[in-house]
Amino acid sequence: MKKTIAVDMDNVIVDIEANWINWYAEAFGVTVTKEAMHGIPEDQAFPDPLAARSLLYKPGFFRNAPVMPGAQEAIIKLQENYEVYIVSAAMEFPNSLPEKYDWLAEHFPSITWRNIIFCGDKSVINTDYLIDDHLKNLDFHKGKPILFTAGHNRGIDKHTRVNSWEEVLELLTSELV
Amino acid sequence: MKKTIAVDMDNVIVDIEANWINWYAEAFGVTVTKEAMHGIPEDQAFPDPLAARSLLYKPGFFRNAPVMPGAQEAIIKLQENYEVYIVSAAMEFPNSLPEKYDWLAEHFPSITWRNIIFCGDKSVINTDYLIDDHLKNLDFHKGKPILFTAGHNRGIDKHTRVNSWEEVLELLTSELV
Repeated sequence: MKKTIAVDMDNVIVDIEANWINWYAEAFGVTVTKEAMHGIPEDQAFPDPLAARSLLYKPGFFRNAPVMPGAQEAIIKLQENYEVYIVSAAMEFPNSLPEKYDWLAEHFPSITWRNIIFCGDKSVINTDYLIDDHLKNLDFHKGKPILFTAGHNRGIDKHTRVNSWEEVLELLTSELV
Repeated sequence: MKKTIAVDMDNVIVDIEANWINWYAEAFGVTVTKEAMHGIPEDQAFPDPLAARSLLYKPGFFRNAPVMPGAQEAIIKLQENYEVYIVSAAMEFPNSLPEKYDWLAEHFPSITWRNIIFCGDKSVINTDYLIDDHLKNLDFHKGKPILFTAGHNRGIDKHTRVNSWEEVLELLTSELV
């Protein structure tokens, strides 16, 4: 039986930082940089964090977000040897549920509905690996947690870190031997 | 730490049989009985199974379904001693995602977004108990599977069976001692 991998969406297969920056610039005319997000929660990088958070509830915010570079090719490659589940804590933003479903159908058609999980707390998700950008998810994972670098988690020295989808492939290919 | 229970929606906290019968009667003028569903998949109980299945995609089908008798009181009671997750294989019907979310908010307000999981395959959900009406979910559960009686699963002699929410409470209260 193939080993299982749970893959987070935002900041892992979705470039939600770039998306947030674009939406904020369009709505409020101020462009912040990805570097401004280093070491702090994303919303704190914007001049008005509350205004930034309000964008998360706008129709289209999740549906039109860009794909993280390298994620598509890597997921298809991983599916050769692993059972890949997409596991998103989407329940906090119920408006995102249909948008995230449609986004996955467009950008990751090899992931069928059987392998999509939208949840709140990820502690009851039992896979061999979890690739995620948040300690709140990784710390309670029963398998092997893999920290995917995002601005907000820079500087954290915990769990195995990967900086790109190339590094994910390298790591998980080495685990097969 | 509290033990965890995953609770299915359709046929467990949602009386989807009654709902389906009502929608079919309204759409096609034929009322089938719950007894007609015994031992067969629900759709096969209707004169036109394909027409019956088409109802699952109609707006409002999941949103307006009746609550299973006793489920509300029992869930609140169980939450005193267990961590209760609602786990629905909603991903097969993406139109149901927002409807099921809103349905839960209305009828089970004590279940917060952190404890809701919409998935496809339930095999990676790791809880101490799973209350479900389908063997396809129960057979792969790593905890203790509990079969909730529905028309289609009558006659199946596998897993611990409960016939009502009163029986769920009785069983799970006895597990505490």
